[in-house]
Amino acid sequence: MSADYDVLVIGAGPGGYIAAIRAGQLGMKVACVEGNPYDDPKGEPRLGGTCLNVGCIPSKALLASSEEFEKISHHAEDHGISVTGAKMDVAKMIARKDSIVDKMTGGIKFLFKKNKVTLVNGWASFVGKTDAGVQVKVTGAKGEEVITAKNVIIATGSKARHLPGVPVDNDMICDNEGALKFGAVPKKLGVIGAGVIGLELGSVWRRLGSDVTVLEAMPQFLAAADEGVAKEMQKIFTKQGLKFNLGVKIEEVKTTKKQVTVKYKDADGKDQQMVCDKLIVSVGRIPNTDGLNLEAIGLKTNERGQIDVDAHCQTLTAGVYAIGDVIRGAMLAHKAEEEGVMVAEILAGQAGHCNYDTVPWVIYTSPEVAWVGKTEQQLKAEGRQYKAGQFPFMANGRALGQGDSQGFVKVLADATTDEVLGVHIINSHASDLIAEAVMAMEFKAASEDIGRICHAHPSLSEVVKEAALACDKRQLNM
Amino acid sequence: MSADYDVLVIGAGPGGYIAAIRAGQLGMKVACVEGNPYDDPKGEPRLGGTCLNVGCIPSKALLASSEEFEKISHHAEDHGISVTGAKMDVAKMIARKDSIVDKMTGGIKFLFKKNKVTLVNGWASFVGKTDAGVQVKVTGAKGEEVITAKNVIIATGSKARHLPGVPVDNDMICDNEGALKFGAVPKKLGVIGAGVIGLELGSVWRRLGSDVTVLEAMPQFLAAADEGVAKEMQKIFTKQGLKFNLGVKIEEVKTTKKQVTVKYKDADGKDQQMVCDKLIVSVGRIPNTDGLNLEAIGLKTNERGQIDVDAHCQTLTAGVYAIGDVIRGAMLAHKAEEEGVMVAEILAGQAGHCNYDTVPWVIYTSPEVAWVGKTEQQLKAEGRQYKAGQFPFMANGRALGQGDSQGFVKVLADATTDEVLGVHIINSHASDLIAEAVMAMEFKAASEDIGRICHAHPSLSEVVKEAALACDKRQLNM
Repeated sequence: MSADYDVLVIGAGPGGYIAAIRAGQLGMKVACVEGNPYDDPKGEPRLGGTCLNVGCIPSKALLASSEEFEKISHHAEDHGISVTGAKMDVAKMIARKDSIVDKMTGGIKFLFKKNKVTLVNGWASFVGKTDAGVQVKVTGAKGEEVITAKNVIIATGSKARHLPGVPVDNDMICDNEGALKFGAVPKKLGVIGAGVIGLELGSVWRRLGSDVTVLEAMPQFLAAADEGVAKEMQKIFTKQGLKFNLGVKIEEVKTTKKQVTVKYKDADGKDQQMVCDKLIVSVGRIPNTDGLNLEAIGLKTNERGQIDVDAHCQTLTAGVYAIGDVIRGAMLAHKAEEEGVMVAEILAGQAGHCNYDTVPWVIYTSPEVAWVGKTEQQLKAEGRQYKAGQFPFMANGRALGQGDSQGFVKVLADATTDEVLGVHIINSHASDLIAEAVMAMEFKAASEDIGRICHAHPSLSEVVKEAALACDKRQLNM
Repeated sequence: MSADYDVLVIGAGPGGYIAAIRAGQLGMKVACVEGNPYDDPKGEPRLGGTCLNVGCIPSKALLASSEEFEKISHHAEDHGISVTGAKMDVAKMIARKDSIVDKMTGGIKFLFKKNKVTLVNGWASFVGKTDAGVQVKVTGAKGEEVITAKNVIIATGSKARHLPGVPVDNDMICDNEGALKFGAVPKKLGVIGAGVIGLELGSVWRRLGSDVTVLEAMPQFLAAADEGVAKEMQKIFTKQGLKFNLGVKIEEVKTTKKQVTVKYKDADGKDQQMVCDKLIVSVGRIPNTDGLNLEAIGLKTNERGQIDVDAHCQTLTAGVYAIGDVIRGAMLAHKAEEEGVMVAEILAGQAGHCNYDTVPWVIYTSPEVAWVGKTEQQLKAEGRQYKAGQFPFMANGRALGQGDSQGFVKVLADATTDEVLGVHIINSHASDLIAEAVMAMEFKAASEDIGRICHAHPSLSEVVKEAALACDKRQLNM
């Protein structure tokens, strides 16, 4: 008996679909299994995973719409533009988001065809191993089938972490899925968890008029970000009208027909309560291995729920790989994509490699936050001698012209070699500005390199250059 | 007799003021001469040159305001936002622009103080050379003085080229200065010259409601840009409502009290005329050496009106340097800045260097156009074997989310070595996206390098990566 496929990818999120396409490009016979987790009206598999369906892409559509609304409502005046009666039709905003999602998820089907990837509709479960390969049972609307593949890539992603005793109904109490489809702007919105998702979606509804309060268990704001960045962002969010309570302990969440009441202890240990119309629970995400039956191929999850892999994403079972949110490392779509490409190339006999040190992070609020490499607190903890250069967008002509002068760029470089160790950006275009920094770090650039490279004038990227020059206290425009 | 200064910089535009600041940082005794060409109300020198006062910075402010107006008027609906009676108060828009310009030009005065640069108010004219240095007479409001400097950097920039027999009054017939301060939106706006300035300012007033017609002598549109880019941009501008007549020959421009009539021959040699309320003449810029009295130090301008310099911006007269628009090369502020830093560092005994091959170009329309390195037509003319990879923003989730899916990225790489030879971008954030490409080219990156470097998802910069992958026909999302 021979295998049905060279590669079977389980999950069509950004890690999985990219792995499948790359494997197809490299001449392998490939299939990708996906169910219908997002209630596709035609019952077809929805490709693109959390990212495309209920994550990055729809949230960015809503962020753009709500930012547009905020600009019209509050900043048009700055330009000399007067408008009356600006009003957001929430249903239309949600429909726009849905149509973008449809376009993108539909696009993956086209890409699968183009790259000769067979799409298998259903849910995967491991059966075992034979000489021919790994056996996977797929249960779909049309019944069951068992597929044998020489290699399997597990790309099942993650799911929202819920709080014990707080049932998410995605109506009153929502995770990322529900928070992307509110039918109207809630008057009072509560958010538990001041992470990326809570801040992004809290910002969306705040702009549309919600009174937003965020509760966070950690005493620190944005603990993963550079401390200087986190401090500045807390200031900016607060000025925008988001209310934060840090260091809280959630005690009880109660729902009535119309409201949610969250009882919690504040940082001083005092009893408090938050009453809201809708509650977003965004306390992180956990690896998704539901129904995979890993034991059948000798695998299990670790204490964090992840599948253990080596540096090349190989599991302990030969021929079985895992990538993305279901393994160690940052839960970021582009990290999963890089791993998908790496594994596909390794399976094709090429030298696959991922440089985890240059994976950028982005928070898509307004302004955005992006960084790559080390934070100041990480360098201090490592005892590394470093210099820091910081430059504000307030001193940049393009930023002023755009009315977009919040934030700064901070470059961290080794005190002796001048190698760039980290770049941290607060700006409405941080997600694009960080690309230059990633490129620089991949080439082991010194801060002097960035400072000596010509940057278009006027452009926001000049601030990256000035921050690099500031590492040697020779910034030109400040 | 000893010199008054180590370095005297003539002109406080982006080249000059940066040269002065860098020289000050390096411990030299520095002065910078600037007049009052922009009618400062207090009679003080206006620092920042054309760029800050009547060029890049004010035009970007107007571009931002007019784009905001266009978004509100035509695209808010897409997001579900309804507004009524959007109206632009042109005077307020111009005042906003002026306040940004004031802030930036004022900032340079602060920078001069911080870096111990003496500002000399007046117009410079060479007197001659003595053993102590170069003598420059400065004529200002308070009279004349002669300054002796060991080294002089000429950074007098450029001025708008006018058409013979077409007097610019900056009321009916305007160059860049007048076009930045229209008191109201002209009903019919004529533009002679489809260069960067004509396209940017034509776009500003088109968005605010002007009916804009552009006449261009060249038969080709945007001849300096990559042909594919130029073709696409002509399509986009035309769709936006700009009208173009290429290959024309201007015959006569006549002004009445209320209108300007331009008689011209069209590309077929037929007589045509354009009647408009305001006319912008944007047919290029010429080096500005007015009143410098170059002969006194043995210099003269070449047939293009430029001061000849070597690769390090040294003129034929020892101790005299020239930078920016007044010499050979691209008339770009950031090119002048790089030269300013180079010359200051050479004067301080350091190794100054400019890499002219990686100076980016930007056209600040909407969408923007940016490129670095060679165009396809240049590579063809050189007989160089190359591969091209192109990827559209239409297939990028962030671009769709932002409602910003026009344009593409094109990467050109050597057919054998894969070295990146040029990158061309059409996108509303092209001026920032190009920074990554410049960084890559400075490090002699291969297209494969860009394709293998992690790019944040979702971000516009993913399109740069995909275009690089497309050089080897292995783009992932198209």
